[in-house]
Amino acid sequence: MISPALKEHLLLFLKEDIGYEDLTTEGIVSEGTEAEAVVRAKQPCVVAGLPFFRELFKIYDPAVQIIFRVPEGTEIEAYQEICTVKGKAKTLLTVERSALNLLQRLCGIATLTRKMARLIEDTEARLVDTRKTTPGLRFFEKYATKIGGAVNHRMGLYDAVLVKDNHIKIAGSVKEALRQVKKAVPFTAKIEVEVSSLKELEEALSEGADIILLDNMDVETIRKAVKLTGKRALLEASGGVTPESIREIAETGVDFISSGFITHHATWIDINMKIERIEQIG
Amino acid sequence: MISPALKEHLLLFLKEDIGYEDLTTEGIVSEGTEAEAVVRAKQPCVVAGLPFFRELFKIYDPAVQIIFRVPEGTEIEAYQEICTVKGKAKTLLTVERSALNLLQRLCGIATLTRKMARLIEDTEARLVDTRKTTPGLRFFEKYATKIGGAVNHRMGLYDAVLVKDNHIKIAGSVKEALRQVKKAVPFTAKIEVEVSSLKELEEALSEGADIILLDNMDVETIRKAVKLTGKRALLEASGGVTPESIREIAETGVDFISSGFITHHATWIDINMKIERIEQIG
Amino acid sequence: MISPALKEHLLLFLKEDIGYEDLTTEGIVSEGTEAEAVVRAKQPCVVAGLPFFRELFKIYDPAVQIIFRVPEGTEIEAYQEICTVKGKAKTLLTVERSALNLLQRLCGIATLTRKMARLIEDTEARLVDTRKTTPGLRFFEKYATKIGGAVNHRMGLYDAVLVKDNHIKIAGSVKEALRQVKKAVPFTAKIEVEVSSLKELEEALSEGADIILLDNMDVETIRKAVKLTGKRALLEASGGVTPESIREIAETGVDFISSGFITHHATWIDINMKIERIEQIG
Amino acid sequence: MISPALKEHLLLFLKEDIGYEDLTTEGIVSEGTEAEAVVRAKQPCVVAGLPFFRELFKIYDPAVQIIFRVPEGTEIEAYQEICTVKGKAKTLLTVERSALNLLQRLCGIATLTRKMARLIEDTEARLVDTRKTTPGLRFFEKYATKIGGAVNHRMGLYDAVLVKDNHIKIAGSVKEALRQVKKAVPFTAKIEVEVSSLKELEEALSEGADIILLDNMDVETIRKAVKLTGKRALLEASGGVTPESIREIAETGVDFISSGFITHHATWIDINMKIERIEQIG
Amino acid sequence: MISPALKEHLLLFLKEDIGYEDLTTEGIVSEGTEAEAVVRAKQPCVVAGLPFFRELFKIYDPAVQIIFRVPEGTEIEAYQEICTVKGKAKTLLTVERSALNLLQRLCGIATLTRKMARLIEDTEARLVDTRKTTPGLRFFEKYATKIGGAVNHRMGLYDAVLVKDNHIKIAGSVKEALRQVKKAVPFTAKIEVEVSSLKELEEALSEGADIILLDNMDVETIRKAVKLTGKRALLEASGGVTPESIREIAETGVDFISSGFITHHATWIDINMKIERIEQIG
Amino acid sequence: MISPALKEHLLLFLKEDIGYEDLTTEGIVSEGTEAEAVVRAKQPCVVAGLPFFRELFKIYDPAVQIIFRVPEGTEIEAYQEICTVKGKAKTLLTVERSALNLLQRLCGIATLTRKMARLIEDTEARLVDTRKTTPGLRFFEKYATKIGGAVNHRMGLYDAVLVKDNHIKIAGSVKEALRQVKKAVPFTAKIEVEVSSLKELEEALSEGADIILLDNMDVETIRKAVKLTGKRALLEASGGVTPESIREIAETGVDFISSGFITHHATWIDINMKIERIEQIG
Repeated sequence: MISPALKEHLLLFLKEDIGYEDLTTEGIVSEGTEAEAVVRAKQPCVVAGLPFFRELFKIYDPAVQIIFRVPEGTEIEAYQEICTVKGKAKTLLTVERSALNLLQRLCGIATLTRKMARLIEDTEARLVDTRKTTPGLRFFEKYATKIGGAVNHRMGLYDAVLVKDNHIKIAGSVKEALRQVKKAVPFTAKIEVEVSSLKELEEALSEGADIILLDNMDVETIRKAVKLTGKRALLEASGGVTPESIREIAETGVDFISSGFITHHATWIDINMKIERIEQIG
Repeated sequence: MISPALKEHLLLFLKEDIGYEDLTTEGIVSEGTEAEAVVRAKQPCVVAGLPFFRELFKIYDPAVQIIFRVPEGTEIEAYQEICTVKGKAKTLLTVERSALNLLQRLCGIATLTRKMARLIEDTEARLVDTRKTTPGLRFFEKYATKIGGAVNHRMGLYDAVLVKDNHIKIAGSVKEALRQVKKAVPFTAKIEVEVSSLKELEEALSEGADIILLDNMDVETIRKAVKLTGKRALLEASGGVTPESIREIAETGVDFISSGFITHHATWIDINMKIERIEQIG
Repeated sequence: MISPALKEHLLLFLKEDIGYEDLTTEGIVSEGTEAEAVVRAKQPCVVAGLPFFRELFKIYDPAVQIIFRVPEGTEIEAYQEICTVKGKAKTLLTVERSALNLLQRLCGIATLTRKMARLIEDTEARLVDTRKTTPGLRFFEKYATKIGGAVNHRMGLYDAVLVKDNHIKIAGSVKEALRQVKKAVPFTAKIEVEVSSLKELEEALSEGADIILLDNMDVETIRKAVKLTGKRALLEASGGVTPESIREIAETGVDFISSGFITHHATWIDINMKIERIEQIG
Repeated sequence: MISPALKEHLLLFLKEDIGYEDLTTEGIVSEGTEAEAVVRAKQPCVVAGLPFFRELFKIYDPAVQIIFRVPEGTEIEAYQEICTVKGKAKTLLTVERSALNLLQRLCGIATLTRKMARLIEDTEARLVDTRKTTPGLRFFEKYATKIGGAVNHRMGLYDAVLVKDNHIKIAGSVKEALRQVKKAVPFTAKIEVEVSSLKELEEALSEGADIILLDNMDVETIRKAVKLTGKRALLEASGGVTPESIREIAETGVDFISSGFITHHATWIDINMKIERIEQIG
Repeated sequence: MISPALKEHLLLFLKEDIGYEDLTTEGIVSEGTEAEAVVRAKQPCVVAGLPFFRELFKIYDPAVQIIFRVPEGTEIEAYQEICTVKGKAKTLLTVERSALNLLQRLCGIATLTRKMARLIEDTEARLVDTRKTTPGLRFFEKYATKIGGAVNHRMGLYDAVLVKDNHIKIAGSVKEALRQVKKAVPFTAKIEVEVSSLKELEEALSEGADIILLDNMDVETIRKAVKLTGKRALLEASGGVTPESIREIAETGVDFISSGFITHHATWIDINMKIERIEQIG
Repeated sequence: MISPALKEHLLLFLKEDIGYEDLTTEGIVSEGTEAEAVVRAKQPCVVAGLPFFRELFKIYDPAVQIIFRVPEGTEIEAYQEICTVKGKAKTLLTVERSALNLLQRLCGIATLTRKMARLIEDTEARLVDTRKTTPGLRFFEKYATKIGGAVNHRMGLYDAVLVKDNHIKIAGSVKEALRQVKKAVPFTAKIEVEVSSLKELEEALSEGADIILLDNMDVETIRKAVKLTGKRALLEASGGVTPESIREIAETGVDFISSGFITHHATWIDINMKIERIEQIG
């Protein structure tokens, strides 16, 4: 289900590109022209974003039809057909760019995420995303990391607590920060705290933090942290996570490895939508 | 000047991350805590997005102060200071991520664009961007390509005409498409048409197109197109533009080279904001 | 196609008149009352605004039916039928005023514009509109001038450049103003500059302005400007354009004549919607 | 006081003209350029709309200063100074058109209304406006008729009851319509009903209508209606009200005369804003 | 008819509870699961809010079906069926809480209002509501008091005049306040003034107030006020109105008794929605 | 800090009451009238909502001053002063009702919550709220329960998981429902499941649920559940929680007791704002 909030958000993308009207298409294409187009990626990728791709067309013109050829999350080969779009030629031409832009971005993220997740899939560690997402695209990009194989971290500042180094500096200590924050949050949210040393880790453990973020620690220290923690809290390793380093980090026994890389270093998949049939009706 | 429409757009970025409140910061940091933070990139880059970075803080808290250390568009070295942010610690902690996310994305685009623009700066050709931008970020990303050294192409479907292959297919010919579209658009907009052969180019020229987009032509054909056109219209080369190929295309004599690469293949610059002073007042 | 942005705009018109509910209609008319109404103008006019008229009813109640009796842009006689509206009596009564208000205004503009355009239709000059439109109604009023026979000028400050006298005063000269502005705008927009003398005209020509607005020049001077320009740029005559003066201006050979008169001196066409059948169903 | 709803409405006018940015002004004018401009009408008029004129500038740039030279509602002579605007040249140039468009429209309405109101000022009758206002401008145009000397009729379908001919046709009779509607509305709203004959007038009186609208009656019949009513309800004459006919209608003794003419036949007052001083600071 | 403004308002309620997605339901329930649920109150009540209850489901999913078992305003017994909801299980689970919350609140108000209205139904006095409504719920709560048997007072500060004690204090006297306010308001709105003594009542009567609010007067004084007024204006008694006192006040002969109690002391009716059938299709 | 989203929400409350203008106040009170008012409750209560009360005035008029006399959360006596409001008389009169309505509702909730929380304050159990809040007021009402002494439950369907009976019915079993939902949610959210028997409780424990809601169990069963759970998960008792029953439930050893009663059965505290000084300036 596309929720009302999500629909409103997608509508902004259409308004950004179309404004009040698509000058070219309105000037050339008649109401009675129907068309059919096929969407294909020119490179292998993980497909992500199909429900949003469809909804963008549906918002503009409820009569358009989208037939998916592969399920969301599929790893497709180059030039494999993703979906077919049928309807008024006007609709296809006007919505094409907005819908492709979103799909290309999300497939890019899902593909990079899948690649990273694969590197650690036989370990205990799971890949998680971060808040380092493109402004205005948080929900969509986190959706894509999930399709790619990551677990989502919090959506924003409002739905979970993460006590970071600056909060600790202001509160005076890990202990003090945790005590204050516990009073302020819904009991349904886990409490996470960032630590930069094994000493802070011990403090966090003794205050009963649910999740402890090990900030930029070397693999050796992470290994000690895992041992010291002994499953009393969930451990998240963060910082310097790349395709090269992720495997070694995962083997330390941490529960989660968070990566901004999967969003801010993802580039677009090359996808196009080719009109294969045009028909004049009425 | 940040226009009202732009301000409303930036506000969406804050709402996305903050929601109704920053649980962690509201739970730990008091109203009376003031702080000062320094923003630095960890890698060399072209700085882009400073006015938006500042406005995000100002929307949240008009009392915050931002002191820029370099002008917009500067090529800075790694660890050079970009700006200082002073004000309530609450404000700094709550807005930090939204403001950095936008800045990192825009610096990434400006840096890649500058690199591409440099490759052709001693030719007649100029680099232009495309509509292949992140949904919801069109204005900002085009702003960044301009800072990087590109010229902007149209903002959307509403502010200029670009007759593409599918429009031509539906209209029947380049000539017919151009005749129809001319009646429909403000006379202040240039009319651009995409052609895929020299034959279509001649047709476009005889119909008086202002700009002609040479779609995916090889360098040899572009060279012929330039000769055939003889300055009667502006020529834009498009397709397969990479750092490797751009120089050769520029030397054909085309006026513009458009590149989606500078937006959809830009990755983020690593920028952080470090709190360097905390003070308890009142 | 009515774009999402346009639909949102039309919805504001309904909200303005209806608020949360039409007290009178909700208090008197039952759900099961169906009606049919005929829309006629009491005076001859050019019909403009039919798609928006229909959309206003459709937004309120998708089940309503509108049957157009004449195509958009037709010059109709007094009391000729424009369209029929069928559906729930509630819908017809509640939307009537909003829909008629827009239609009457747009027909008024189209009719006045047609009259002006006719006066110069056998010359080379074409009539263009201005930004002197009713606040909040820009798109609709420019749509009506186009239906009336004018060519649209830029939509707003964002989609084209027009360097006016005050910009020149601040920049120091026509030349300086043009040089600065060229760097800032999409290459798809033509650059227009306002000049008040033949000397400024020459400066503008030598800087390669695409369009030159001759501000409040007398017919004799305009004629000289046309000669001096020799097709190197498009010329737009502006100022004091009335039904009495337009023909003489057109005969000077200018390309465009812009007129605020066609929007700010248009009055409404007297149109009403008469319920001709009421039926109780269910 | 400009209420929050009003502020939001004015902001739409700015967004319509400016979009994301004023390309010309941002390209030419620097932050440090200050200017001062004088606003004058080129023809005699009643001044209306000053608070909105000021607010449009203030929304864009709170630092701008507006000094009024005449109070709202003043009848000024041609070329008399209305106000002075001081501040950043950028602000003045960018907001000018939006602010003038609104002022010109509202002065046009106030001036025409004042002329009509004058014609009956020594009678008992008072001029009232209608819902025939430009879509999206209802509040502003009714404000202008009030400044001009009219009394406002209801704002929309939501704040008062007006039982019209079609409501009566559906309900079966004036009596039945009034009985039904009374149950549905706040007791703070007067109940008005439209009648087309003296017989219907009697029915309305016996049902205790607060206001009775005499629809398109000739002067003789209106006179009879006044006599028959004997102050038991307020009488509003409507239909065919022009500067030529209004006096005769007023002398019948009706309480109110409603006129769509004062809004839909008002044209703009010619007002301009001239920059008289430019200064480079900082 | 649910107006566009009302639809937008209801949509806010859905966004508040659902955000971008219902995590639990999206994670567990498939698209193909259909369900049927029955809505019942666990206690006797007056049913109010059915059109809004239905619209909340319809906004989320137009395919859902709501079958009402009792008409709006019915006094039902405990466990009597109010309506049935059929459709996708996802829709039922996701919208349930928002729709029930509104229904429970509105039934609570209608039930309390009905109880109060009953106490005076054989007198001349009628119960009216006030502006003491939950922020953001004014229209809905006033709708519920109407269903309960009250007459609505003004909707807000914009649709009627009520001169209160502080306005009088500032104006200097009842007389002065009334004179000033008459000039400012639509003639379709009745003018109401609050008086705190019989002396002020006389002043209000001589100024021709339409409604006079007797503020916190004892029953004896109200009786004198009724006599003194002699039907020259409508009288509204206000202050200290409870189930215990309302009958005695009504018997004084006042026209209206206003009560904030019916909104701010109403509690929710216990209503639940039970899924009685689940079916897997497709 | 009042976040941008919160500010927008408060603005809706002002628009609801004021519309485009406060007819009475604008008609009577001049710009130059200043006033000072004191806010007092007529009954003992817990003060909640002061930051929102202040913000409502500040949004309308940033120049207004609010001086708090007691801190948020204080238990005050009847007629004790809560705060003073100083500024333009117009502002005070126009915003008064919106600001008081919110304050009265929130104080009502905080007062009832405090009473309930007191009853169990020496036990291990803590009081939590529910999603049974007034539509559109979720954030504010949950804020008030927190001030009253409760812990917040999830904000909505988007920020935590609560698997309810119907989810379980659809999934087939507690185990199956938990397995599916775990894949779908951010790892920062705790997973809660509702159980109706000790058998389901065991199933939930073996699937590692973080929180288990004991739905409508009698005290004896709850006691067994606590024993059986042995701290392996947090236990939340729900259903039939009243001031009479809460103590007994708390003594079973459950961790949390959730209560809709503290929101849907709270009534308003009687608070008024009395103007104590009026001054004419300028």
